[in-house]
Order: sequence, then structure tokens, then C-alpha cells
Amino acid sequence: MPLNITQKLIKDHLVAGKMEAGEEIGLKIDQTLTQDATGTLVMLELEAMELERAKTEASAQYVDHNLIQVDSKNPDDHLFLQSATRRFGLYYSRPGNGVSHPVHMQRLAKPGKTLLGSDSHTCANGCMGMLAMGAGGIDVALAIAGEPFYVKMPKVWGIKLTGKLPDWVSAKDVIFELLRRHDVKGGVGKVIEYFGPGLKELSAMDRHVIANMGAELGATGTVFPSDKEIKRFLKEQDREDDWIELSADKDATYDIYEEIDLSEIEPLIAKPSSPGNVVSISELVGTPIYQSYIGSSANPGFRDFAIAAQIVHDKQIADGVSLDINPTSRQMLTDLVKESHIASLLQSGARMHQAGCNGCIGMGQAPATGRNSLRTTPRNFPGRSGTKEDSVYLCSPETAAASALTGQITDPRTLGMDYPKLKDPKNPTNDISLLDTPLPLEEAKKVELYKGPNIASIPKMDEMADHLELPILLKMGDNISTDEILAGGARVLPFRSNLPEISKFTFEIIDDTYYKRGKATVDKGGHAVVGGYNYGQGSSREHAALAPRYLGLRVALVKDFARIHWQNLVNFGVLPLTFVNEEDYDLLIPGDVLELTDLRNKIQQGNQFSIKVKDKDQEINVQHALSERQLEIMLKGGIINWVKNKQ
Amino acid sequence: MPLNITQKLIKDHLVAGKMEAGEEIGLKIDQTLTQDATGTLVMLELEAMELERAKTEASAQYVDHNLIQVDSKNPDDHLFLQSATRRFGLYYSRPGNGVSHPVHMQRLAKPGKTLLGSDSHTCANGCMGMLAMGAGGIDVALAIAGEPFYVKMPKVWGIKLTGKLPDWVSAKDVIFELLRRHDVKGGVGKVIEYFGPGLKELSAMDRHVIANMGAELGATGTVFPSDKEIKRFLKEQDREDDWIELSADKDATYDIYEEIDLSEIEPLIAKPSSPGNVVSISELVGTPIYQSYIGSSANPGFRDFAIAAQIVHDKQIADGVSLDINPTSRQMLTDLVKESHIASLLQSGARMHQAGCNGCIGMGQAPATGRNSLRTTPRNFPGRSGTKEDSVYLCSPETAAASALTGQITDPRTLGMDYPKLKDPKNPTNDISLLDTPLPLEEAKKVELYKGPNIASIPKMDEMADHLELPILLKMGDNISTDEILAGGARVLPFRSNLPEISKFTFEIIDDTYYKRGKATVDKGGHAVVGGYNYGQGSSREHAALAPRYLGLRVALVKDFARIHWQNLVNFGVLPLTFVNEEDYDLLIPGDVLELTDLRNKIQQGNQFSIKVKDKDQEINVQHALSERQLEIMLKGGIINWVKNKQ
Repeated sequence: MPLNITQKLIKDHLVAGKMEAGEEIGLKIDQTLTQDATGTLVMLELEAMELERAKTEASAQYVDHNLIQVDSKNPDDHLFLQSATRRFGLYYSRPGNGVSHPVHMQRLAKPGKTLLGSDSHTCANGCMGMLAMGAGGIDVALAIAGEPFYVKMPKVWGIKLTGKLPDWVSAKDVIFELLRRHDVKGGVGKVIEYFGPGLKELSAMDRHVIANMGAELGATGTVFPSDKEIKRFLKEQDREDDWIELSADKDATYDIYEEIDLSEIEPLIAKPSSPGNVVSISELVGTPIYQSYIGSSANPGFRDFAIAAQIVHDKQIADGVSLDINPTSRQMLTDLVKESHIASLLQSGARMHQAGCNGCIGMGQAPATGRNSLRTTPRNFPGRSGTKEDSVYLCSPETAAASALTGQITDPRTLGMDYPKLKDPKNPTNDISLLDTPLPLEEAKKVELYKGPNIASIPKMDEMADHLELPILLKMGDNISTDEILAGGARVLPFRSNLPEISKFTFEIIDDTYYKRGKATVDKGGHAVVGGYNYGQGSSREHAALAPRYLGLRVALVKDFARIHWQNLVNFGVLPLTFVNEEDYDLLIPGDVLELTDLRNKIQQGNQFSIKVKDKDQEINVQHALSERQLEIMLKGGIINWVKNKQ
Repeated sequence: MPLNITQKLIKDHLVAGKMEAGEEIGLKIDQTLTQDATGTLVMLELEAMELERAKTEASAQYVDHNLIQVDSKNPDDHLFLQSATRRFGLYYSRPGNGVSHPVHMQRLAKPGKTLLGSDSHTCANGCMGMLAMGAGGIDVALAIAGEPFYVKMPKVWGIKLTGKLPDWVSAKDVIFELLRRHDVKGGVGKVIEYFGPGLKELSAMDRHVIANMGAELGATGTVFPSDKEIKRFLKEQDREDDWIELSADKDATYDIYEEIDLSEIEPLIAKPSSPGNVVSISELVGTPIYQSYIGSSANPGFRDFAIAAQIVHDKQIADGVSLDINPTSRQMLTDLVKESHIASLLQSGARMHQAGCNGCIGMGQAPATGRNSLRTTPRNFPGRSGTKEDSVYLCSPETAAASALTGQITDPRTLGMDYPKLKDPKNPTNDISLLDTPLPLEEAKKVELYKGPNIASIPKMDEMADHLELPILLKMGDNISTDEILAGGARVLPFRSNLPEISKFTFEIIDDTYYKRGKATVDKGGHAVVGGYNYGQGSSREHAALAPRYLGLRVALVKDFARIHWQNLVNFGVLPLTFVNEEDYDLLIPGDVLELTDLRNKIQQGNQFSIKVKDKDQEINVQHALSERQLEIMLKGGIINWVKNKQ
């Protein structure tokens, strides 16, 4: 059977399951990527797993998110990450090297490989003929430890590109066109695979732009072929040997088929406050702007900055506009400096920022109250810029630069200048030496993890007991979100690498006595909580399972679970149970003690069993939905113990 | 009588007082400089004064301190400052243009003029043959409104420079030599004036380095002659017409005389945690460093970055070192880019930051816990870097660059390379157009001040009443600091432009009911507080007088005052009184009501008068120390009203 590229990549890495859309499959992971905001917990998980050495072909830790050092917390995290990469045999990309996705593409991405990253835009490296997917931190930790990644077999959405982009229209407008057609859920459960004659007009970095914002379509991944352009790109990086050709078989088919004629695309803009809110620029021309922002993994390429520089060259930006330039990699910044593009930007009035994610994730460059910000970033969710009730528009670098000159949203085609001719850097920079390579095993084993005062190891967790008497500490209603279980935000997030500290905020919004009461149960076998429908909805943050577990939570008994939180509870050894008869929910009150006897046997013998309510003449029928593998994990007391025991 | 330069500058600007050391003199101010951290209050004061237009020759508002925009507060401040400069006829230097002192030097400084700035390093522009002095915000607001600046006539400390600096030793080491000899109080009450044959070896920017850190000696100012080098510098800036020659008369004398032989200076370092803690580098060679930081107004010059770039060119910084490059002006950054120095720094592994004060004032780049930071900045006070118990060493750019390569404090003379030859930029950049010039008066009058939600006008304040009945809301002990009156720090400072909000923190540390109780007295004539010795010591922040005044404080009755807070109380219309008999302090208790009758007459008739304690058979003898001018200010209800009435 002829295969498309996605099917080939999956087939080559399949270790479990069937390649039928919707079925769970297990995939061997060749490479991983972590950034610093998620990476500290991943490294603590590797420590807790007692991992000897990364089992992937290449795993890289990037420092690109938390670059603002107003106190010692972020720099302490950087040192911890550096020590962990040395200990576990990972690459370390120091602060200043740039954003994970373009740096990974330049230095480590390889056609034909799988890449799993604890960052939702990991899909960007699909531009290199890889199956690149974003995932939670523990999934990436498991991949580093050699475990497969489990995901539902996606549908493959083939998109044929024809024609050639007109002047003043670029790759960003292509992905906007898809978002205009399908909105932010259009890609859920799918891998988007591009093919067709239009591809030859798109450089590797153009494809990065398109692949990156597959995340905004909700896609599992984005796949491009590995063709001569990828060979050229790798050659430019002194990595020609990493190239293999990868294309769909003749007569390969797709679950979904669509065409885009590149020649028909016009400049597009995503209005506040969703990347799917795409309209023709003509609807917005004249809208005043406060800020024009260029950078991020959604427009990381040399050409994205060079075109902006050429547009503003020898001109000056409009009075009162902040033109913020955020380079995406040290390598490209060096080339932009050498080719005098940075000088053009500076002389036009731009502000130059350090290479990193920066304002794209709300780390600086927030706009003023009530003012419009025009950005080449991938997302404009409400408040993401740092400013409450912000008004962020997404666009191409061409539109951002043109609008910076006029102070209002401007169709770059109306600037009255010729479309600048783009030239590649004459002698592209190749600073592999600044990406610290893994230490040899014997040296690595001697490395001590460096832990600043705000970094704490994950405590050892015990196996599941056979007999439990668990007081119900909380009885909650429907739709409890992970934000209510453990809030995000500036007050809580600084403790993301410090479980004892962050756990103090657990359930705080619901009941601020929980922390104390929970902690008191730790030595007495733990406690339970009871909830209604859709328990654990919202953000996928793992701390919302890990922190209650640390405080003694052993059973969450609810009407039903939100999917990701359910998975996280399993991973951290909290038994997720649902009522067989939902009316039993009404019988329970806080303070009741659930008695679970012969538990290890019972959960293995079937999906249903009964629990006694101590000192009451009540029995509650409950059920679990654990797979064989998950049963093993649960019995071991969570996935960290499970992996540790496997090694 | 032959005059030195300082005397000439003072004589040319003297409007009050006698030129006798220690006597108060009034000086006409030609130019002012404000930065954004202090500037918002200055602009609100100009608004409250109902100023029509700045009366100085040139006043410039720089945005260089609060460049980190994690929410809308800082960008809102920037927009407010921009609107205020337009309204009042000031220059506006937008974020990204760089640090006030070097930008002012490049674009506006003029030999022979006075400059007053609300930044302690304003003295840096003394390098241009100016009398440049730092002052409080209200002093600068008054200067903008055309009022003289009052200061004690300084002693003139003449320092004769001979010889030539050896290779690897630069201007920073010269000022360290002075700090080594005289420590951080050595310059108090003095203007330091440099002269002698050694000057011809020091460029204008070298002199900036030396003048800037006159602040660390506690000097009132630093003065250099305006010679051919200043002419060359101004020509490079396309401002040759602004040059006049300025030198000491033949046979001019100095109150204090000292010599420095430049050829005998060696690389020096200020150890933690005082700029006066200077030792020879030989004592510290080998000390491991975490960070090497280049930038700030203490090493702002093109040469300071160029020499570092040439030292690290084609080499790589040590593993684990963060080499942080902080450009100081857009102009110089552009030149550094064009001359490929920035490329050298990037390729060595440096992190490039935006042009501004940044980590020098704790805005980013804080070091990790327990690690050493080596910086070219002017100050290493404890915690100033943002990290508690930090360990910051100050040095020259040569030492910073050499140490970045080795990862430990390194004497640059031991690098084993020739001292790089410094070349000036071939075609220096001149972007005067990016410093927004004042609007014409008629246009300016139409400008509305832009106020984000966190910016509030200073409310009108009433004149001093003739009869007051003031309940004592607080009775405090000795050494109450302005931090106790109104704290600084990250919780309070964001409200610096919002008097109603910041006043909520007034006396909070001493009594958190004060705010409510104070506010309740506003419509009833106000209240008093009682204190012991050294009341109002510490930071000079004006809010510590303005906020209690806003909450109804009319009289502070204490044993004695710290000088600056006393001045601030007068400025904001709070009558500062001391006990004639200190034992009367013991008679008063909180809740007592002070009855002041015929007050306007009494304070004008003499320095002493008596106050009745209502419903008690007590009279308290009190005294004030107000000058004629201060009496006028007090009667008007503060200096804002006083200036408003004068116009």
C-alpha cells in the first residue's frame, strides 16, 4: 500500500497499536526538546526516576522562556537545567542562544525522526520531514527514559500547495489562510501533511512558519517532505550528512484532501483575541497601532527579519510606535548583524531585544492599556501579552514592518516601494559550539545536580497500599478546573520547581485549610476527595495532580473526569474512580472515611468494586478505567516509580 | 581673581548667595534631565504647578529605567511621559534610545551650562565642561519651571592628571583609584575638577566614566574643561557650534589639591558590596565568576564595548559564564553593529540586551544565588542586582571581557595578547531625529496628558490655615526612616505615579490603621504625628512627605529631623516643628489634640511659639527652622502652590 509521509514516519516508529485513525498507538521517540518553563520539572522527574542516561538519540534543553532575571529564581533554574543536562546526557542551549524551535531546527533536527517536546509549538520541526509533537512534561521525561509516546493514531490531512506567493505575501499568510478556513479546532486529531508543486517556492524556514502554527489549528503535528530544499538548509548548517530524502509514495492517499493556490493568497490578519479570527487586511487598514512586534517561533527566519529591515531601511518608524525586534537565534542574529539588517532596524527606531521567546509568552513588551499591538507571534489569546484586556493582532513581518512606518495597520502592497529582493547571508554563521553537547557517560555520572534555594527534588512516593482508610477532605461540585486545584499565575508559578512550596496553594481557592489538613494525612495513609462532573477541566498542568498526591491524595472519586487530568492522576499514582451510581455522590459528606480493602487485587480483577463508608452502613460501587499498563503504573505508586523499576 | 572652571560655572549662574564654601547659593539651571523612574512624578508636579512651558534652554525626559513591560504599567508610564514632554515643551527620548547620561551627552550637553537631573549620576555630563548635578524630583520640576537650584557652595577639589594610562588600564581604573584613596564619602560637599597634561590622553567618553562615578564619591559634581577633545566630540555629533572653550584661569587655585599619575594606575576592582571597597586586581585573580556584565553609564562609550569585543573576538567565553552586553545608546549600538563588534560579541557567546539601564538598577540580569557577578556598572550595594545577598564586583571593560573568557577574575594583562588598537567608528551615526524635539508652544498647549489607569494627578492642596486642631495619630520613637514612612520595593513602587494608591502604604509598617485614620482627618483640618530623634532618615524619596500630606498630615513634631526629609516636608506643606524642651515629648500621647492658633502670624513673627494641648492644661513650646523663602512656601501650602502663584 502506498504511504504518505506521515504514515511512513509512524510505521517506522510504531511499537504498539494499530495504524487506524482513533486507535492508541505507541511511538518510539528519537529526539526530545524541553524549554526552561517546563524543563525544570522534567529534569526533577528524571532525577526521581533515577535515570542513568537519556536513551534518545538527541535530547536538548533550551533556555528561552524565563530570561528576565529580576531576582535569583530564573538564573538558579538555568544553572539547575545546565547541571541536569550534564548529568543525564542532554544538549544544553544556554540563555541567549534563542528559541527552542528554530535552534533545534538549525542544530539537531533530522528528517525521518520523531521529536517530542514539552512545548506546544514543537510541531514546528515538522518542516524538516520529522514527526514532531508537543506533549506534557512527564511524557517527555518518559521519552527521554526510553519509553514510547502514546497518542491516538491521527487522520492525515493532505494539503496540496500549488502556485507561487505574490510579492508582499509570505508563509505566515499561508497558515492564516488555513486558520481562516478551519479555525482553531480544525486540526484536532489530525496530522497536516503538505505536498505539491507549490512547495518548491517555500524555504525550510517558510515551512517552519507554517508547521509551527499547526498548533493553532489544534493539529497533532505538521509534516513536510524532506526534499532538496531541506538538503540545502542542512548543508548551510554544515549538517548535510543528516539529510535523507523523504516523500510520499506515488499514489499515496490522505484521509482528508485540500488544495491551496499560493498565488491567490493575500495579506491576512488574525484579529483579537484568537489566532482563528482571520480576516483580509483590507478590513483593518487604518487601525492605529501602538506596537509592531517582530519575532517568535512563528516567524523565526533570517528572511523574516531581513524583509522587515529592508522595508524600514533609511526610513523612520511612526511617532509613538514601539517597533520591537526579538531575534530567534544567536546564529541568525549574528547573520542579521553582519548583513547590516540590524543597523537598518536600529536606525529606523526599533528596539532590539535579546534572542528568546520574550513578549510572545508575556515576558516583556506588554502593550499600553487600550492600545493595539500588531505581532508576528502565533497567539493572541486574551491577556497573553501581559496586559489585561489587550488587543493583539497577528500578521506577517511584511505587514508588521509596513505598519510600523505608518503607525496604523497598512497593507504592505500599498507602501509604494518594490518588494525587496531577499538575499541569503553570504557566509551563514554556524555556532554549534555554543550548544553544549552531552558529556561522556563516565563524566556525566559524577555530575551533581545544582539546586538553588527554590528547587526541590520530587520526594519518593510509596506504592499503592492494599488497605486504605481515607477521610474525604473535600466534596466539590461540577466542572472543577485545574486552576481551582492549583492556580497558575505569577504568585504560584515561581514555585514550579519546588513541590513542597507549590503544594501550599493546592485547592486554596476552594478551601484554604486543605493544605494543612491534607499534609496531616500523609503519614496516616492519605485522604480522598469527591467531585462532580468534568472534574479537572482546563489547563493540562501536571502540578494539579502531583501537588495533591504530595499532600496525601490517594483517591479522587467523581462523577466523571476531564481527560488530561485523569491521565495526570494516573501518572502520579492517584486512583481515579467514578461512581457506578451517580446518586451515591449525595450519600457522601466531608469527614466520611472511605475504606478500601484488598485494593491491589480488586482493581486488577475487574473495573468495578465496592467501597465501605466507615462507621456507616453504606457501600458505594465504584469503577476505574485503567488499561493494563496503567494498572501497573498505579500499583507501583505512579509512573516515576514504574519507570524506575523497569530500568 | 583667577578662577577655576567650577568657580566660573557657578559665577555665571549665581542668582543668590555668596560663593563661600558651605553657604547656600542659588543657581540658574540651563538644562534638566529626568529619567522615567523619577520623571512621572516630576511631570505630575509640573501639571500641578499649571506650568505653561519649560523655562530652561533644554529639558529632556529619558525612558531608560523601567523597560521591562510585563504588564501595562510601564508602557502606560512611557505614554504619559511622552504626552507630558509634548505638553510642557521637553525633549522625549523613547525607550530603546538608551541611558540618559550618554544620550544627553551625545545630543544635548553644552559646555558652559548647568544641568540638573533627577538621577544621581547626572554628574556624568560634567565631562562636557558643565556643572551637572543630581537632585530630587521636585528640585528638577522647579528648575523646569524656571526656579533656581539651591545648594551649598561646594569646595573645589582640583585633581591634576599627569602621564598616560598603561595598556589594559582604562578610565574606570582612574575613578577606582580615587575611590580607593577616599572611599564613598570622600567627595561630599565638593566639586571634583580635573586638569593637567594627562587630560589629553582621555577622550570625552573616558571623562564621562570618571565624571559619572563622582556620584560614588558623594561629590556635588565633577567638572572637566571643554577643550579640543570636546570640540572633536561635538563635531562627531554634528554639533560643533555648541562648543565653547572652557578652562581654568592661569594661576587658578583649588580648595583641595591632588595628583594622579595615570601611568602608575593598575587594573582595580571594587569588591562587594561598596564601590569604595577597591583593591588591586592581584588580590582577586582566580575568583570564579558566574556573570560578566558590560554596560551602564559608568562605562557607556563605544570604546568600552569595542575593546571587550576585540578581546573576545574569535574566542569563546568560558562554559557557564553569562556575558551580558547592555548597550547604552542607540547611536553607539548602531556603530558597534556596523563595525562588527556586536558580531564578535555574539559569536563569543554573549547575550545582547536592549539599550538601557537594565541590570545596573536591578531590572533584569540578576545573578544566581551565591555566585559572583563582575560588572562595569557604578554600584554594587547589597541586593541592588536583584539577588539577595549578592556578590557583585565592579571593574573595567577590559577586566570584564578577559574574565568572561576564563570564567574567573583575570588580570587582562595576563591574557597573552596585544592590547587591541581602538579605532573610532568610520562614519559615526547621528540620529538626532529619534530624540523627539519640543513642540511649538501653540501646538503644545493643545496636548492633553495621557494617563493610563495607574496614573493620577496630584490633588490640589490648600494653603496653611490660621487655626488648626490636629489630633496626634502616631507617636513614634527615634530613627524613623522614610522606608517606615512609605516603603519602597516591588509592592509599592509600581504606584509611584498614583498618589491615592501609593498613600495606602503610608506608615503601614508602623501602624496599618494610619491610612484610614489619616484619610478621615482630611476634611476636618488634618492631623499631626510626633517623633523622636533623626526623624525621616534614609532614602530621599519625596513620596514619604507627599503621601502623608495627602492623607492630612499638617504638622510633624519631633526631637530632630533628618535633613532631606525635613526639606521634603517643607516642599509639600507639612510644618516641621521640633520641641524646644525635648522632655515635652513625654507629655504627648496619641489622641491628644494640638491646638495651633494665629498660626500664619506666629510662624512669621519668630522661630518659637507655643501650642496648646486641647482639654489638657498643657502648653508645648515648639520651634521651626524655616528661611524667609520657606515661610512663603509653607504659607502657600507647599512649593507646588508657591510656584503656581508666582507664574
